[in-house]
Amino acid sequence: MPESSIDNSTGKVRVAVIGASGYTGADLVRLAINHPNIEIASLAAKTHAGKPMADVFPHLGRIKLPDLVDVDDVNWEAVDVVFCGLPHGTAQDIIAKLPERLKVVDMSADFRIRDTGTYEQWYGRPHLAADLLETAVYGLTEFYRAQLSGARLVACPGCYPTATLMALLPVVSAGLVEAEDLIVDAKSGVSGAGRGLKQGTLFSEAGEGLSPYAIGAHRHAPEIEQEISKAHGGEVTVNFTPHLIPMSRGELVTCYVRLAANKTAADLRAALESRYASEPFIEVLPEGVIPATQHVRGSNYCLINVFEDRIPGRAIIIATLDNLVKGSAGQAIQNFNVMMDLTETQGLEQQCLFP
Amino acid sequence: MPESSIDNSTGKVRVAVIGASGYTGADLVRLAINHPNIEIASLAAKTHAGKPMADVFPHLGRIKLPDLVDVDDVNWEAVDVVFCGLPHGTAQDIIAKLPERLKVVDMSADFRIRDTGTYEQWYGRPHLAADLLETAVYGLTEFYRAQLSGARLVACPGCYPTATLMALLPVVSAGLVEAEDLIVDAKSGVSGAGRGLKQGTLFSEAGEGLSPYAIGAHRHAPEIEQEISKAHGGEVTVNFTPHLIPMSRGELVTCYVRLAANKTAADLRAALESRYASEPFIEVLPEGVIPATQHVRGSNYCLINVFEDRIPGRAIIIATLDNLVKGSAGQAIQNFNVMMDLTETQGLEQQCLFP
Amino acid sequence: MPESSIDNSTGKVRVAVIGASGYTGADLVRLAINHPNIEIASLAAKTHAGKPMADVFPHLGRIKLPDLVDVDDVNWEAVDVVFCGLPHGTAQDIIAKLPERLKVVDMSADFRIRDTGTYEQWYGRPHLAADLLETAVYGLTEFYRAQLSGARLVACPGCYPTATLMALLPVVSAGLVEAEDLIVDAKSGVSGAGRGLKQGTLFSEAGEGLSPYAIGAHRHAPEIEQEISKAHGGEVTVNFTPHLIPMSRGELVTCYVRLAANKTAADLRAALESRYASEPFIEVLPEGVIPATQHVRGSNYCLINVFEDRIPGRAIIIATLDNLVKGSAGQAIQNFNVMMDLTETQGLEQQCLFP
Amino acid sequence: MPESSIDNSTGKVRVAVIGASGYTGADLVRLAINHPNIEIASLAAKTHAGKPMADVFPHLGRIKLPDLVDVDDVNWEAVDVVFCGLPHGTAQDIIAKLPERLKVVDMSADFRIRDTGTYEQWYGRPHLAADLLETAVYGLTEFYRAQLSGARLVACPGCYPTATLMALLPVVSAGLVEAEDLIVDAKSGVSGAGRGLKQGTLFSEAGEGLSPYAIGAHRHAPEIEQEISKAHGGEVTVNFTPHLIPMSRGELVTCYVRLAANKTAADLRAALESRYASEPFIEVLPEGVIPATQHVRGSNYCLINVFEDRIPGRAIIIATLDNLVKGSAGQAIQNFNVMMDLTETQGLEQQCLFP
Repeated sequence: MPESSIDNSTGKVRVAVIGASGYTGADLVRLAINHPNIEIASLAAKTHAGKPMADVFPHLGRIKLPDLVDVDDVNWEAVDVVFCGLPHGTAQDIIAKLPERLKVVDMSADFRIRDTGTYEQWYGRPHLAADLLETAVYGLTEFYRAQLSGARLVACPGCYPTATLMALLPVVSAGLVEAEDLIVDAKSGVSGAGRGLKQGTLFSEAGEGLSPYAIGAHRHAPEIEQEISKAHGGEVTVNFTPHLIPMSRGELVTCYVRLAANKTAADLRAALESRYASEPFIEVLPEGVIPATQHVRGSNYCLINVFEDRIPGRAIIIATLDNLVKGSAGQAIQNFNVMMDLTETQGLEQQCLFP
Repeated sequence: MPESSIDNSTGKVRVAVIGASGYTGADLVRLAINHPNIEIASLAAKTHAGKPMADVFPHLGRIKLPDLVDVDDVNWEAVDVVFCGLPHGTAQDIIAKLPERLKVVDMSADFRIRDTGTYEQWYGRPHLAADLLETAVYGLTEFYRAQLSGARLVACPGCYPTATLMALLPVVSAGLVEAEDLIVDAKSGVSGAGRGLKQGTLFSEAGEGLSPYAIGAHRHAPEIEQEISKAHGGEVTVNFTPHLIPMSRGELVTCYVRLAANKTAADLRAALESRYASEPFIEVLPEGVIPATQHVRGSNYCLINVFEDRIPGRAIIIATLDNLVKGSAGQAIQNFNVMMDLTETQGLEQQCLFP
Repeated sequence: MPESSIDNSTGKVRVAVIGASGYTGADLVRLAINHPNIEIASLAAKTHAGKPMADVFPHLGRIKLPDLVDVDDVNWEAVDVVFCGLPHGTAQDIIAKLPERLKVVDMSADFRIRDTGTYEQWYGRPHLAADLLETAVYGLTEFYRAQLSGARLVACPGCYPTATLMALLPVVSAGLVEAEDLIVDAKSGVSGAGRGLKQGTLFSEAGEGLSPYAIGAHRHAPEIEQEISKAHGGEVTVNFTPHLIPMSRGELVTCYVRLAANKTAADLRAALESRYASEPFIEVLPEGVIPATQHVRGSNYCLINVFEDRIPGRAIIIATLDNLVKGSAGQAIQNFNVMMDLTETQGLEQQCLFP
Repeated sequence: MPESSIDNSTGKVRVAVIGASGYTGADLVRLAINHPNIEIASLAAKTHAGKPMADVFPHLGRIKLPDLVDVDDVNWEAVDVVFCGLPHGTAQDIIAKLPERLKVVDMSADFRIRDTGTYEQWYGRPHLAADLLETAVYGLTEFYRAQLSGARLVACPGCYPTATLMALLPVVSAGLVEAEDLIVDAKSGVSGAGRGLKQGTLFSEAGEGLSPYAIGAHRHAPEIEQEISKAHGGEVTVNFTPHLIPMSRGELVTCYVRLAANKTAADLRAALESRYASEPFIEVLPEGVIPATQHVRGSNYCLINVFEDRIPGRAIIIATLDNLVKGSAGQAIQNFNVMMDLTETQGLEQQCLFP
C-alpha cells in the first residue's frame, strides 16, 4: 500500500457529497458509510435542503448522517474532498467556485469531454470552466491510474462508457479490431435515468417491456469516441445504441467488432486477460461463461468475455457492470482511493447481491 | 374476402391443439376461443392428459373447453385442422402419423429448416419425415401467402426469425444492404423459453437482470440464414445474438446493417414502407418513433423502424413483436386463416394490452 | 337480449372519452375499439389536446382514432354517451355542464359517495353538483343492474371497492359475518396510481419491493363503507389497508372476516356461489383453488374464493380482478351495455393474457 | 465487547456451510466472505459436489472459495462451526451425526419446533433427533440472546416467523393485544421459495402478478404459534396468510390486532420502541413512516411501525425484513456472533441496496 495522503489524526478524509438526493449520490453515501477512511462531513441537495437524509432515502435511515443542506451552506472548512453527483451543467458552475484546496471527484458529465466544442454540441451549452477542464483527469481508473494519484479534479466516466471502454480499449490499442466498425448494443436498468420524474421511467411504462432510446444521439457516444479515438490514434465514430431494460440496476454492452487481418476471438481474449490480469475489479471470465448483470449487482466488478461470431472475421465482446457502482459511485470511490493514495479496493469489498 | 374452404353448416372449423399445456398452446387457445370460425374440438398434452384445461391454465378457467387428452386418444374424425405446439422432434413423429385429410399448422421447429442436413446438425437428430418436409410451407405469412392458401402443412417460423426477417427480407431482396454483414442483437422475454422447469428461468434468476445466451449457437440462426440466403440469392451467415430480458412477453431485434453503395437509411425506410403498405399486421412507424415491446403486447402486430447509424455507410433496423402472438400463436392463426381462405385478420383483432 | 336503446341506422353509439390520456381512458379506448356497438366519436384530454392518440399511447397507434381535443372543443352534437376518465374534482365540473341529452359513464370518484359531507371530508373540497349526485347510479353492475338500465349518469366504483364488495356484499347482506370486524388487506399493481408523475411510482422506487400506503386514509375506504353499511343496514367502519405491488396491473383483496354464530366458511361459499351463479363475469372458484391476479389480467373477470381460517370462528375471502378492466374501464363498458340495453358482455369477450 | 471464544492464533473461526447451493447458503457465504472472524473452510452440497462454487453461483466467482464437496467428504477436523442450509428432514439427519465438538447454526426448520408431535404433523415425518432438539436454542436473537451465548446448536427461525414475532412478541407479552385474534397477512419475494425447480416460481408464472398460497397450511404457522403461545402464556392459534410477490427478495407482514381494553396504537408503539431501543438491527420507525421492503434489501435490519386502525379497538403493526438476510443468513451470522462471544454486528454492516 502506498503512503496515504491523509494527514489528520483520525485517518479519515472529511467528505462532502453534493447532489446527494439522486441515485448516484445515495449509492456514494452507501459505500462511504462503510469506508474506513471516510467521514461524511456534509450532504448537499438543492430541493431537499433542510431535510434529514432519512426522509429522502429511507433505506439509509439507520445511519447517523448529516442533514441535507443547500450547497451554499456547506462549511467547506470542514471538508477535504467533494463528491459531486449533480446533473451536467450545474456541476461545472459549482465546482468552479469551490476552494482550491478541495479535491473533487465529479460523477457528472461536465469534465469528461476534453473538447469544449464537442461538449457544447452534445450538451447544448458552452462550457464555463474550460481552464478547470484542462486539469481534469478522466477517471477510468484502470487506464488513468498514474494521473489520478494526486489529481485535484477527477471526471468519473459515464456508466456506458465505463463498460464499453473496458471491453474495447485494450483491443483497439493493440490494433486487434477495426476501429471504424465498432457496434455497441447497450442495455441498462432504469436507475440509469435518474430519480427525476419522467413518464418513461414510471413502473407502468418501463416495466414488462423494453425499448431502445436515444438512438445515435446518446451523450455517452462522444465520450466513448473520445477515448476510443485516443487509443486508436485517430478520429473514430462508434455505433452506440442504448436500450432501457425493466430492471433497476445493471448494465451490459454487447460489442460487435470486426477483427484485424488474421486475428481471432482468441487473440482478443488473450489481450484482455493480459491487460486485466492484475486488476482487482475487472475480470475476464473463463471461456464460454456468459456475463450477466445479476452477477455484479451492488458490487464494483466489471465482467468481460469474448465470443466467436458466426460471421467470419468478426467477434463479440460483452461487458457488464452495475451502473450505479462501477458505472458511477463505486468507480468514484475507487478514484478517490487512488487520488488519496489509499488502498484502491478500500470500501469496495461488498459482494454482489444475488438473487 | 376469398371464398372460404369451410364446407360444413356451422361455418366452424373443428380444431385440435396438440401440445396444449405449453405457453404457445395456451396462447393459441386464447385466440381460438374468440375466433368466429374455430371450434376447439380437442386439446392434447402428454403429461397432463386427463386434466381439465383449467387445472393446467387457470386463466382459461372461465371458458368451456374439452379436457386434455393424450394425443393417441384424440378422435381425428371430429377434427379438421391440427395446431401443433409440441417441442421439436416430438412434433415430426406425431405429424407424420396424422390422417392425410387433416391440415396441420405446426408451431414447432420441425418443418422450418428445408435442409435435412442442417436440421440434423442443429437439432441433434436426423429428420424422420423428410417427405413431409418437402410439402411444408414456411409460414411467414407476409412472404408465403400464395403457397399458404390451400397448403396442407405449414411450418410457422420461430419468434426471433419472424421479427428478424420482417426487418431484413425486403432490404436484402432489394440489395440495399450487404447480406454478408448482418448483425442481429435480439432481446426476448422469458416466456420464449417455455414452461419447462429450468433454473435459468426462475423468477429469482431471470428477474432484475439480463444476460445474453446461446451466443452463436441459437437454433433460430440457421432458420434466419435460410430465408436471408434465399432472398439474397446466395449462402449467407448472419450474426444472431439473443438476450434474456426480465419480462414475460415481448421480443425486439436491433439489426445493424451495412448499406450497399450509395444507399441510405431513408432508402431502407422507403423499401420497408412500400413492402408493408397493405399488410394489416406489419407497420413501419413514422420517422423517429421508436419500437417498444410494450406497444405490441398481446397483439399480432410487428412494428418496424429504421434509424441512421453514426457510422457512415451503416443503418439500424429495429423490429418488435409479441413472441407468443405474431412470433407464434397469432401467426399460426393468421396462417390458418390464409390456408382456409378466411379473412386473414379474423380472430386477431384484440388490441395491445398496455400497461 | 333486451331491445337496445340505440336508435340510429348504424347500430353504433357515438361515444366521447374525456380524460383519454390516462391509463383508465386508454383501456376504455382499447375495449371500445372492438365493441360492435361503439363508434369512438371524440377523445378529449387537457394537456395533450391537439395530438394524435398515437403520440400519447403508441400501443393504440395501429387504430384510426380521432385526435385528442380539449374538452371544450368536443362537438357534443355528434356524441351520444360520454365516458369520463378525469381525476376527481375535475370530473364533476365538466359533467355538470354536459348537455342533458348525453348519457354519462363516469370512472372518476366524483359521484360514488352519496353523502356530500363524506365527499368533502375525504376529497378536500365541497361537491359542486349535488343535484346530479342524487340521480347518479353506483355502477357496481351486479348489484345495481335494475337502476342502471336507462340511467343517465353512472358512477363506476373504484377498483378496490369493486373487488372488496364482490367478496363481501353477499355475506354481509345475509348476516353471515360480523360487519363490525371486516379487515381488508388489499394489494394493487402500480397502474392503479395513474400515469401522473410521482416519485413513488418510478420503476426504480416501486420495483423489486412492496409497501403499504395510505393506511387508514385511502379514499376507497368510505366508498366501501357506504355500500357495506347499506348491505348491513347500519353504519359500519371497515379496515382497508392497501399495498403497492411491483406489477403493472392486477388487484387482490384478502378479506379477514369473523363468522356469525354457527356459520362456517362453507356457508360463505354457498352464499357467494348462489349469488353469482348466473353472473357472466364473477366466478367463485372451486374449493381450494387460489385466486391470482395473473388469471384475470386484461379481462373483465373477478375471481373469488373462501378459505377456512385456523382461528376458530373466522374465515378468509379472497377476490381478484384487473384494476383497469373490471376495476375500471371494463366495468364502465359493462355499465354502458346495461344502460343502453345491449348484451351485457358485449365488447368484453377478450380473454386473460397469460403469461 | 465480550471476550471472544475463538482460541486460535488467526482470530478466525473455521466454518463449513452445508447446503451451500441454495439461496440461503449463498447469502451466508456472501456475508461470511466479509466477516473478519470467519474463514470459510468447507462448502458442501449434494448434487453439485465436485464443482467450483463459481459454477453454481457465478456472482461469487470473484472470491477464492473452496470447491463444493459432498457432506460426507468434509474434513471436520478443520472445522469449528457448521452453518446448515439444507432442507428440513435432511438437516436433522446430518446434524445428528456431526462430531460433538462442532457448533451448529441450523437455518433449516428441523430444530425450530419444540414439540415432536407438532413437527411430525406439519413436516410429515417423525423427528429423528429428539434429544438434540432439547438442546437447541431458538435463534430469534433479540429474544434468546442469553441462551445463545455458548450454545452448541441454534435453530434459526423461519423468515416469516422472524418478521411476525418481531412485530408481535413485545405486545403479546405485555398483554396489550388479544392473543386469540392475531391476523398476519404476509407477503414474500420469490427467493423465499428456494432455488428448486417449481412451475410456480418461474418468471413467467410469478412475474407481473400476485397470489396467496398455503392458506392456513404454511409450516411457519406452528412456529409462530409456538412463540406467541409462550409469550402469551397459553395456547394460541394465529391467522397466517402468505402471499407470493413478484420481487426476488423482501418480506413484509401486516398484522391486524385487537387491542386489549383501554389500550391504544400509541401504547403498542411505546412498547415496541422501548423493547427495541438498544437493538442494533430492529428499528421502530418514526410515527407515520411506512415500512417498505425496498428499505432493507440486502441488509440485516427489521423495520417496524404501528398504525391506527379505523375500526375502534384495533391497530395495525407492520414489519419488514430481507427474507434471506435477517430472515435467514444474516440472522444466522448474528447468532453465530453471539454464540462465539463476538461483537454481535460483526460482518453485518453492509447497507441496504437501493434502488
